[in-house]
Amino acid sequence: MIKFDEFEFVDGGVCAAAGFYANGINVGVKKGSTKKDLAIIYSDVKCNAAALYTQNKVKGAPIIVTQQNLKDGKAQAIIVNSGNANTCNENGIEIAEKMCELSAKEMDISKDDIIVASTGVIGQPLNIDAIEKGIPTLVKSLSASGSLNACQAIMTTDTREKQVAVEVNIQGRRCYIGGISKGSGMINPNMATMLAFLTTDVAINNEMLKKALKRVNDITYNMVSVDGDTSTNDMVCIMASGKANNDEIIKEDSDYETFVGGLYAVMMNLARETARDGEGATKLLECFVIGAPDDDTAKVIAKTVISSSLFKAAMFASDANWGRILCAIGYAQAEFDISRVSVELASDLGKIVVCAEGSGINFSEKAAKQVLSADEIKILIDLKDGEGKAVAWGCDLTYDYVKINAEYRT
Amino acid sequence: MIKFDEFEFVDGGVCAAAGFYANGINVGVKKGSTKKDLAIIYSDVKCNAAALYTQNKVKGAPIIVTQQNLKDGKAQAIIVNSGNANTCNENGIEIAEKMCELSAKEMDISKDDIIVASTGVIGQPLNIDAIEKGIPTLVKSLSASGSLNACQAIMTTDTREKQVAVEVNIQGRRCYIGGISKGSGMINPNMATMLAFLTTDVAINNEMLKKALKRVNDITYNMVSVDGDTSTNDMVCIMASGKANNDEIIKEDSDYETFVGGLYAVMMNLARETARDGEGATKLLECFVIGAPDDDTAKVIAKTVISSSLFKAAMFASDANWGRILCAIGYAQAEFDISRVSVELASDLGKIVVCAEGSGINFSEKAAKQVLSADEIKILIDLKDGEGKAVAWGCDLTYDYVKINAEYRT
Repeated sequence: MIKFDEFEFVDGGVCAAAGFYANGINVGVKKGSTKKDLAIIYSDVKCNAAALYTQNKVKGAPIIVTQQNLKDGKAQAIIVNSGNANTCNENGIEIAEKMCELSAKEMDISKDDIIVASTGVIGQPLNIDAIEKGIPTLVKSLSASGSLNACQAIMTTDTREKQVAVEVNIQGRRCYIGGISKGSGMINPNMATMLAFLTTDVAINNEMLKKALKRVNDITYNMVSVDGDTSTNDMVCIMASGKANNDEIIKEDSDYETFVGGLYAVMMNLARETARDGEGATKLLECFVIGAPDDDTAKVIAKTVISSSLFKAAMFASDANWGRILCAIGYAQAEFDISRVSVELASDLGKIVVCAEGSGINFSEKAAKQVLSADEIKILIDLKDGEGKAVAWGCDLTYDYVKINAEYRT
Repeated sequence: MIKFDEFEFVDGGVCAAAGFYANGINVGVKKGSTKKDLAIIYSDVKCNAAALYTQNKVKGAPIIVTQQNLKDGKAQAIIVNSGNANTCNENGIEIAEKMCELSAKEMDISKDDIIVASTGVIGQPLNIDAIEKGIPTLVKSLSASGSLNACQAIMTTDTREKQVAVEVNIQGRRCYIGGISKGSGMINPNMATMLAFLTTDVAINNEMLKKALKRVNDITYNMVSVDGDTSTNDMVCIMASGKANNDEIIKEDSDYETFVGGLYAVMMNLARETARDGEGATKLLECFVIGAPDDDTAKVIAKTVISSSLFKAAMFASDANWGRILCAIGYAQAEFDISRVSVELASDLGKIVVCAEGSGINFSEKAAKQVLSADEIKILIDLKDGEGKAVAWGCDLTYDYVKINAEYRT
């Protein structure tokens, strides 16, 4: 069980943890734009590091270079550009390696300790010149208050900055876990996801760090879908500096669970904000499934419901078209008894039961419309068929989703 | 291998085959509308019949009643209403049985020989009164030229009538296979699909009829997706009257293959038209995959590509964003070597190679835009990794898809 209560939210994003510095500036990767497009996150000591990557067979060149650099489980900095995914380009690997070399040189660290990431259009050559020119300025202004700049520099179609940090208490010491994340379209993480960069000063060995990252990722980013498209460049990575000076976490003890609880708070909130900021979205959809035969079944159902185009379009219209929810539950790839299911819709503006024991029940359409006019909608599904539960996050399907994606390159 | 050339297209839809009569009228199931909403297809002799049903765990009441009625492999008529799916209603089974009883009585046949189907909103009680009142009029005007009326009466958000018929030659006899189909949204058939009603006068036993239906369905309707939502009421059924007086087909001989070829021509064209008439669609997308390790791999890839929301939105904008095609190929749930893939886009207005050996190649964006401005787009994917091949059909994602589905109930 995740410890849901042993942390406090703090400011600072990826710089909340001791010894981390960040920055983000415009260098001209996003052509004709003054938006920030290059970010660096730097630790003043070498860190234990772990990462999860997209399961897409087409992998961005930066993924391949990062996998190589993280083989020894160590990293000291992250460089990321937005505006170009550096994927499906003939010289992609070369360019990604060059990004590591140039930034490592400027920071005076080893190029093998760099995590590199790119996000943006697939299949267009990434010009290294703008990046090369920008790196010195970027590194010079690295700052312990630079998380927001970095966060802005990794955005593409995102409309909101996504950064979260928490304080946890381990062995009486104040420790910090923070992160920034981007992602708005091509969001349907599969084992790993989008771009999320996490930092902590907790001392934790590589095995436990990786275990915690995977465990939390499975119930946060992997439970988000905006459009069902799994990106080629998804990556979530974490650097742990150990500067909190706790005794290193080396097994699944109570300290480990505290760390996992804090990491969950960070990743869940980043993931949830990613859904809220889905391309064109006007509403966050949060689907809770309980009473499933097991957690995996609950997960599949929750994710299927928030992925249904028809249900998403109905939510855009604040239309309590629960038949579409039941339809999606029904085609979820899992085994369970559909006949006992109940469905409730809820928001800050009220709640309403729309279905019980698999059949519709009378409800006021007017009241339902009122509940659904909020910008955060909860869908509560009880299968009454066991103890399994899960949460998934999604967003509504709007005209603007079509607009953004019909015009992205042009 | 399917015999692609041993048939000729003819008029008549479900009435092309000898002994079939059809009709469709407005009885008032679609409230406040004068659109047709009740159809009957009738055979003057009892037929061998077979059907495939939705794999959704939530099954419309008509599906359950039809499954029961087809246990003996015999049917003589089909009754269908649009405007209400009769699904997730407490009294659904009762209403579906009543539809069989009332229409059987009027046609003077057994109620167990009726196939019943409903399509429309899920979870709202279906009022039998309007149907009861309409059945006598409907039956009275059954006609050998009534296919178009029946076709219109099963439409919901459809904008085009979908009917096809072919003539095949079996043992020197002219035989006919015809069908009508509806479906525009909630289209992602899984083993069975939407509503499609097929008729033939070919004499064929139940085992061969079912085998042919499943074989052809797997490469036609099951390769269509409009929005990834698998309906609760999908059904494709066929009635074979035997009135062509050929020696009954009882094994997989040359006659069987001729029948399968004709059935393929009917079902493929109906399925293709269903994709073209996808909710809000302005373009038909036809994805051909060749060079796959096997046919199943090719199928998965073709279907994944035409299901990608991002790719579909790019097609709406006539934007040759081939990175999204490659991304979708990459997350398809299949094993193959991605590094050799080539992608070509084609239409009546020209063709253009956009990707070779897994990387982008230089092409004229202007020329690509020209190719993609047509209303039928072919995506040709060659994996260069074997002999497997498949075709899938989809449509673009447009503002109108959102509009239709944000306003469907209201």
